[in-house]
Amino acid sequence: MTLDEARALDAADPLAAYRAQFALPEGVIYLDGNSLGALPKATPAALADVATRQWGDRLIRSWNEGWIDAPQRIGAKIAPLIGAAADEVIIGDTTSTHLFKALVAALRANPDRHTVLSEAGNFPTDLHIAEGAVACVPGARLKVVARADLAEALDEDTAVLLLTHVHYKTGERFDMTAWTARAHDAGALMLWDLSHSVGAVPIDLNGADADLAVGCTYKYLNGGPGAPAFIYVATRWQDRLASPLSGWMGHAAPFAFEDAYRPAPGMKRWLAGTPAMLSTAALETALDLWADIDQHAVAAKSARLFDILAAAGDALGLDCVSPRDPAQRGSHISFRHPHAHAITQALIAHGVIGDFRDPDILRLGLTPLYLSHEDVWCAGEMLKKIVETGEWQNPQYSERLAVT
Amino acid sequence: MTLDEARALDAADPLAAYRAQFALPEGVIYLDGNSLGALPKATPAALADVATRQWGDRLIRSWNEGWIDAPQRIGAKIAPLIGAAADEVIIGDTTSTHLFKALVAALRANPDRHTVLSEAGNFPTDLHIAEGAVACVPGARLKVVARADLAEALDEDTAVLLLTHVHYKTGERFDMTAWTARAHDAGALMLWDLSHSVGAVPIDLNGADADLAVGCTYKYLNGGPGAPAFIYVATRWQDRLASPLSGWMGHAAPFAFEDAYRPAPGMKRWLAGTPAMLSTAALETALDLWADIDQHAVAAKSARLFDILAAAGDALGLDCVSPRDPAQRGSHISFRHPHAHAITQALIAHGVIGDFRDPDILRLGLTPLYLSHEDVWCAGEMLKKIVETGEWQNPQYSERLAVT
Repeated sequence: MTLDEARALDAADPLAAYRAQFALPEGVIYLDGNSLGALPKATPAALADVATRQWGDRLIRSWNEGWIDAPQRIGAKIAPLIGAAADEVIIGDTTSTHLFKALVAALRANPDRHTVLSEAGNFPTDLHIAEGAVACVPGARLKVVARADLAEALDEDTAVLLLTHVHYKTGERFDMTAWTARAHDAGALMLWDLSHSVGAVPIDLNGADADLAVGCTYKYLNGGPGAPAFIYVATRWQDRLASPLSGWMGHAAPFAFEDAYRPAPGMKRWLAGTPAMLSTAALETALDLWADIDQHAVAAKSARLFDILAAAGDALGLDCVSPRDPAQRGSHISFRHPHAHAITQALIAHGVIGDFRDPDILRLGLTPLYLSHEDVWCAGEMLKKIVETGEWQNPQYSERLAVT
Repeated sequence: MTLDEARALDAADPLAAYRAQFALPEGVIYLDGNSLGALPKATPAALADVATRQWGDRLIRSWNEGWIDAPQRIGAKIAPLIGAAADEVIIGDTTSTHLFKALVAALRANPDRHTVLSEAGNFPTDLHIAEGAVACVPGARLKVVARADLAEALDEDTAVLLLTHVHYKTGERFDMTAWTARAHDAGALMLWDLSHSVGAVPIDLNGADADLAVGCTYKYLNGGPGAPAFIYVATRWQDRLASPLSGWMGHAAPFAFEDAYRPAPGMKRWLAGTPAMLSTAALETALDLWADIDQHAVAAKSARLFDILAAAGDALGLDCVSPRDPAQRGSHISFRHPHAHAITQALIAHGVIGDFRDPDILRLGLTPLYLSHEDVWCAGEMLKKIVETGEWQNPQYSERLAVT
């Protein structure tokens, strides 16, 4: 592809106008929106309003003027992005906390079975939290197997199959419908972690008949650093599952101040403590951008952006570990290289921000809302220059940062 | 007390200058800072900086430029307010989530005992979460008794005594040193909920030899609606307790992306998911106000403010349920009245914002950083007027709001 061809794709891009909705620094091509999404231009004003007017001026009254319902209202805005009904999603806490709640609840709902099955190399918090969850349910255990062995490992003791829809490192995507059906055929509940797929690929939880899902909102949804996460519980499970984090905000009548816990009906029972309203307001603003976006247009553009970088990698003979078939991946591309860390640092030094994932992965996120084809073409050219000239061998790129 | 006397107290008030650090609406006397603290004037600019510069401009790089260490850095700023060492406190999550983690960890550390003991009428989330926590530890149970029966109920099966230092409704304060000693004499761990006392009364966890504590930062600390909560673990327990919410951010080496969980040393193991950085930044700004404040000056002013409202209540013959001895209470005053809800609504209609607590409590918070003696004197006069004239009987005050 030539620069002119990339520009021609931009001229015909139905999502091109969204770029103007984001504040991005000059001189940077940001390929890390799969880790921390960019700042929507509307967010600072929304934050100023929640701080100055809602908190500062209205004070405690704001709980009656929009705050108390925010977790459900915002959940309903995520619902169409994941194929859920409006009353099947609520936000708050973190993905890790939601995973814990969902796993303990699912294990208790399936008491004749004892195993949480997941994939080796899944995003660490999924496995770490699953360790913590099984320790809270007598007899429960965690079984972690390679992807190729998952189908065989699904057995009569599997209570929950926990899979991350798109792999954080390779970008590989599970077939949601097929794996949900496999879990159900084995008698297990299906719990999806959508952190690396929501806002990146079309998702249809109800179409796939999924039971539970959780996900992150600070990646492709641009909710802000550490934005509240979401949890989805299929309607048929809502009365049968209860959160082990039985907190006041999830009580059926919080302002009756009862000593005994009674779970609220619907999704409210998945709340525990008071939601972080400043971070919540930023998330709501970011989600409003998604109201009119066609998920399939996002996926189509993601596929084009991927092809641009895949071609650059091919020209260099790089080992692309992400699937070539768009239906089998998310919206990032990863290359395995023994010097991936130094190459990542060299790219960052030239304003192309991607990230490194231990031990040998260069990961480049493709966010169709604010990246142009030209951006990604230029990033590919920079990658070629750095690898072809050996610039990554410069000693300045050997330092390892805590977070990259 | 006369208005002139109240003004004379203001003229001599060593904390008077702090009022200028807060943005408070015109025409409001805010007596609900014990529920949601007021907005520090510095906070909107700090939020704008974290959004526009740190997130918008620095993007993912901000994790290396102050975000990753924020939970510990901010915990260290809370430490002097609660008599803890800087490395005994960390922030993140909610008070409810921290309570869950602390209770499960403490039960596991004391495996020959099975009972969490707490007080009937404790703040609901303490009891609700304790229900959830004991359900996660085989054999554990929750025992809830009246305050008068607590000492007798402490026995050889008590693993943890869970008390809220200052009662959310009455303002009664437990003697931290005495009750911690009683718990230890019985062989139990002592877990304090400081939500209604931190920033309101001097606290010395280490002086009292406490084991664990949690607390809220959006009341007297003014961290913002739903600001991250804190957890304290005494140094001697830090290696022996582990969080059941074993999340990635609490791993010993998160960026090694290991499948197996290994808890981080020190307080970092109490983290789970990614902290909500916008809400976190607001909290840090609010805490910076406390750096030079003498806790004993705060307590002394709180006592003077209390006396002003207590005198107004006495003049009306109201039933004050808060202790008269300042050493036995927090920083709010509560009156029991069969029409407390209507009186609260009438006060709010006249710009005096307090709150109602079911079924019959009018609760007025006394926040020495931004309330003057004159403010509180005027509130007392308004209370007298509303009760003496029977204005609260106006039908417009009968409506019950979701949150008051």
